[in-house]
Amino acid sequence: MIKHPKLYHFKRAAGDPPPLEAETTRTVRFEEVDALRVVWHGRYPSYFEDGRAAFGKRYNLGYLDMYNEGFLAPLVKLHFDFYAPLTFPEPFKIKARAIWSEASRMNFEYEIHNFENRLIATGYTVQLITDLNFDLQLITPPFLEVFRNRWFSGELL
Amino acid sequence: MIKHPKLYHFKRAAGDPPPLEAETTRTVRFEEVDALRVVWHGRYPSYFEDGRAAFGKRYNLGYLDMYNEGFLAPLVKLHFDFYAPLTFPEPFKIKARAIWSEASRMNFEYEIHNFENRLIATGYTVQLITDLNFDLQLITPPFLEVFRNRWFSGELL
Amino acid sequence: MIKHPKLYHFKRAAGDPPPLEAETTRTVRFEEVDALRVVWHGRYPSYFEDGRAAFGKRYNLGYLDMYNEGFLAPLVKLHFDFYAPLTFPEPFKIKARAIWSEASRMNFEYEIHNFENRLIATGYTVQLITDLNFDLQLITPPFLEVFRNRWFSGELL
Amino acid sequence: MIKHPKLYHFKRAAGDPPPLEAETTRTVRFEEVDALRVVWHGRYPSYFEDGRAAFGKRYNLGYLDMYNEGFLAPLVKLHFDFYAPLTFPEPFKIKARAIWSEASRMNFEYEIHNFENRLIATGYTVQLITDLNFDLQLITPPFLEVFRNRWFSGELL
Repeated sequence: MIKHPKLYHFKRAAGDPPPLEAETTRTVRFEEVDALRVVWHGRYPSYFEDGRAAFGKRYNLGYLDMYNEGFLAPLVKLHFDFYAPLTFPEPFKIKARAIWSEASRMNFEYEIHNFENRLIATGYTVQLITDLNFDLQLITPPFLEVFRNRWFSGELL
Repeated sequence: MIKHPKLYHFKRAAGDPPPLEAETTRTVRFEEVDALRVVWHGRYPSYFEDGRAAFGKRYNLGYLDMYNEGFLAPLVKLHFDFYAPLTFPEPFKIKARAIWSEASRMNFEYEIHNFENRLIATGYTVQLITDLNFDLQLITPPFLEVFRNRWFSGELL
Repeated sequence: MIKHPKLYHFKRAAGDPPPLEAETTRTVRFEEVDALRVVWHGRYPSYFEDGRAAFGKRYNLGYLDMYNEGFLAPLVKLHFDFYAPLTFPEPFKIKARAIWSEASRMNFEYEIHNFENRLIATGYTVQLITDLNFDLQLITPPFLEVFRNRWFSGELL
Repeated sequence: MIKHPKLYHFKRAAGDPPPLEAETTRTVRFEEVDALRVVWHGRYPSYFEDGRAAFGKRYNLGYLDMYNEGFLAPLVKLHFDFYAPLTFPEPFKIKARAIWSEASRMNFEYEIHNFENRLIATGYTVQLITDLNFDLQLITPPFLEVFRNRWFSGELL
């Protein structure tokens, strides 16, 4: 529906290491489509979460990895741009891409394509870091520093 | 679709106090209907839960009431009989009815009607009682004994 | 978590009629909270939809009103800013606010507050207008023109 | 929690062809667990549906296969027995087993096990057959007769 899809939601600064990415696939369930026979927009947070979970699995930075270190990463921003509908029982690809930041937060961009490579949706999330009592951690915690050092060094690419 | 709807799922014994009941209403959301424009069957656990929550509120026997006493009531049985579909944006009534039992469990029957008084669905749940570590409590815990004494005495009717 | 909450997501132009608003309330269900005992972010599309449904009901601009005129209003943008968590079984208020636009689209801003008037989340949606075949309508359809004339005239305030 | 799990929900008659079965796997999502960190019971209809979808795929008897023949198979009964909780991010297996019936209906039994082969839940569904207007088909429709002939002949085993 829109000519120039918005694939990049965060600014890239010169000298930043390139984004890290993970991909997963999923198939539209009957329960996910609405009366118009397309996926209801409210199912997409689950789709993005699958992308983020794939990223977490690939880079050992999942919910439980962080939890076991004593940290949570609650979303403070969640954004979707919808370009085309998904239908039942269509398979599709979800890409989650971490964008470099030096703040105590995590920034992800997402892309969803169907298997004919049509762009379905993009979006982004911003997660802050808290301890297990939801107290905001303004200083990047060690587990995230370690991950960023490995990212910056190029060994994760 | 079925001639003789099954309204009673648990046996009643002579001498049992009559069931206790609570009712609530809800309206079908757009997100709850499927490609056939009727509520997808998988939304009904939420509807029954609304009925049980109304019961818990009325009789101070809700999730948090039990939790604060140190107990949980996980479902071990959940059953639905579907008679007619609900459509968007139809309002409907959910009735939850506790059936007397002397065991360490809670038995509920449910009825859902639309506002033209058409029977939509019935069903039941069986909940066992555990402590907060999910350890089964074969002896009825005090909070439930107190509730049953009040029920048996007739003061809750 | 954030000092200056973003309440206004769309620009206001001089001469625009003031926003139109509707409000509804809802209570957090047990099924809506996650392992951290706060509402999972992916439930909020349903909350915004409740706000939009309240708006549709108040101004006769709901899903079925549009559908019966031969039009759909699919979301092309959906955005959330999260400020504080909701917990079970907390009641909360959802406000949906239509922002004036002369294009063939509908722009809504949302605010969610709990009953202690704490800001929980804000956000916005952009909906384009299509016919029932999902064909984009670049010219504002009659039902929306009529609504806007009434809005502009001040009779809806 | 229960000593003798109920694996068989439908009667088997002498001379009936043996059940047909399909299996699929799935992993518990973060959004599926509740405040007690176990999967909320209301997610299981989706799990059973995954089992039924796997069956439909294997035997060309899925939702769209039937729809394209002009038929629907709405659930009239849905039952769950819960034996043990699933936790995040646990993988698990869903088995759907069609039980022979000569009526115009479809009967499925389900079993869910985790990857340590612990029984999590069993249950069953009964589906009637309707046309696309939800009119009950008391005579088994051709697509189902053909399937049953192949089943009876043994070629599907």
